[in-house]
Amino acid sequence: MSSRVLVLGGGGFIGSHVVTAAAKCGYSVRVFDRQASALGELPPSVEVVVGDWYDHSALAAALVGCDTVIHLISCSVPADAFPLSQEVTSNVLPTLGLLEAVAEANVRNVVFASSGGTVYGNGSVGPLTEEAALSPQCPYGVGKVLVEQCLRFFAAKTGTAVTVLRPSNPYGPGQSPLGRQGAIPIFMRKIAVGEEIALFGNPSRDFLYVEDLAEAFVLAIRGHHEGFRILNVGSGRTTELQQVVRLIEDTIGRRARVIRKGHREYDVDTNSLAIDRIGRSLAWSPRVSLAEGIARTWSWVQTVI
Amino acid sequence: MSSRVLVLGGGGFIGSHVVTAAAKCGYSVRVFDRQASALGELPPSVEVVVGDWYDHSALAAALVGCDTVIHLISCSVPADAFPLSQEVTSNVLPTLGLLEAVAEANVRNVVFASSGGTVYGNGSVGPLTEEAALSPQCPYGVGKVLVEQCLRFFAAKTGTAVTVLRPSNPYGPGQSPLGRQGAIPIFMRKIAVGEEIALFGNPSRDFLYVEDLAEAFVLAIRGHHEGFRILNVGSGRTTELQQVVRLIEDTIGRRARVIRKGHREYDVDTNSLAIDRIGRSLAWSPRVSLAEGIARTWSWVQTVI
Repeated sequence: MSSRVLVLGGGGFIGSHVVTAAAKCGYSVRVFDRQASALGELPPSVEVVVGDWYDHSALAAALVGCDTVIHLISCSVPADAFPLSQEVTSNVLPTLGLLEAVAEANVRNVVFASSGGTVYGNGSVGPLTEEAALSPQCPYGVGKVLVEQCLRFFAAKTGTAVTVLRPSNPYGPGQSPLGRQGAIPIFMRKIAVGEEIALFGNPSRDFLYVEDLAEAFVLAIRGHHEGFRILNVGSGRTTELQQVVRLIEDTIGRRARVIRKGHREYDVDTNSLAIDRIGRSLAWSPRVSLAEGIARTWSWVQTVI
Repeated sequence: MSSRVLVLGGGGFIGSHVVTAAAKCGYSVRVFDRQASALGELPPSVEVVVGDWYDHSALAAALVGCDTVIHLISCSVPADAFPLSQEVTSNVLPTLGLLEAVAEANVRNVVFASSGGTVYGNGSVGPLTEEAALSPQCPYGVGKVLVEQCLRFFAAKTGTAVTVLRPSNPYGPGQSPLGRQGAIPIFMRKIAVGEEIALFGNPSRDFLYVEDLAEAFVLAIRGHHEGFRILNVGSGRTTELQQVVRLIEDTIGRRARVIRKGHREYDVDTNSLAIDRIGRSLAWSPRVSLAEGIARTWSWVQTVI
């Protein structure tokens, strides 16, 4: 029997790509998500459990028979400015509840989606290794750091293998052009319909095509013997947002109307992740260039705007 | 008018020494503690507020007119083995509530008691600087690390000056010989009454006399301009527990009955803190030798056993 993987948040943007890639690799995949409506695009072999991750018994039932859990749920985004206590209540505590259920169910491998785009903050000059100082600028990023600390302790205490992936800025098909994060599809829709684009400063970002990211999660399903590991997942390069706008203009064949604004408090100026460690640990490397990824994303965005 | 300081947990072992030292330095001191019964030993000039730190309005009222808050409350000890979620609920979340009240009351300086004895874990070889890797072995230590991360973010967002002190192993008068932590008074009582002492392995500890520690807290009341700083507070030396037993035997004039046991999971083998940074930042250095501190502690322990 193949190994069974539970994907929490498997109906989301990153989740649906992870689920598709894992199913393609022969894993038995079970999705746990709160919205059945978001799950239309998943492969038919995938088992779906609709539930709330605050519900311990629902989580416990979903974990039965699973070797690996991939945790992709987040109840906040980097732009959220609520108090830290809300981040702890809505993301950290439910994750600790999940870990208690994981220990009870004797699941041996946990893969967590942290955030290479927010945990490092502005303190360091890139490319950032996993050892760089952590200084998140938003509650979302603080929550990721807190969960990482809890996972380190959990791995040491229980012997569970834990992989923390720190993705840079993922983009691709399935990322809403009307959402609160994801510059590329948001810019595409605005350029396509003639709306203004606001550029806050001219930050550089490490844009990562979502199928490359999904492959990293699937490679982490195999587990490891180190107990706990943190791996950056990035494209290996950074691109200024105005260069991204130009690439989209070329793809769409329309000019953007750009409004320049000041730096936003929760944005980091530049973000570039060192990806040597994930290359060694998972034999992973990014495959899809930004131009190619933008073309594929535009093919999808066209179908939803 | 002198600067007013609110000491949360000012009735506790460390707190009562901090309160006494701060009052002696001319600060107006207000204590916030849940137990009026524990407050007998405080100087008469000290204002006392009895309340629960889960009660936001009680905290907010206590913060009125204060320039500095010293946060010494902990609802757990290193030996506690409950789930991490309980540590987060009982220590991290109430601290975040405190920080919200601090921001509302416009208190400009926060001093937090972290734990140099537990946050570093076993990963590093001492003396440990404040930059050493964090790897706590108990929920109590994980909670301290989580609060430190939250304080770093809070300082950056609000401009509040935050000093995190990481004390090694404090001991001295006022530390219960019947408590769940504090080897020195516990050993004293056991030796005095002829009970067996269990030594779990032979760990080395950095024992810090509580009045030296209290002086560090008082020096931090003056605040600083760096936003956020972390300072180890230690004696600058480590001592094997069996050497501590010998020093106590010499002080008391009785032989100990020692039972050797295996290493405990939540104990670190050795703990030695580098104290260069606090020497530079606060012009602080330890004054009381271990032999002298043990003599003073015994003078007090004799009065309560």
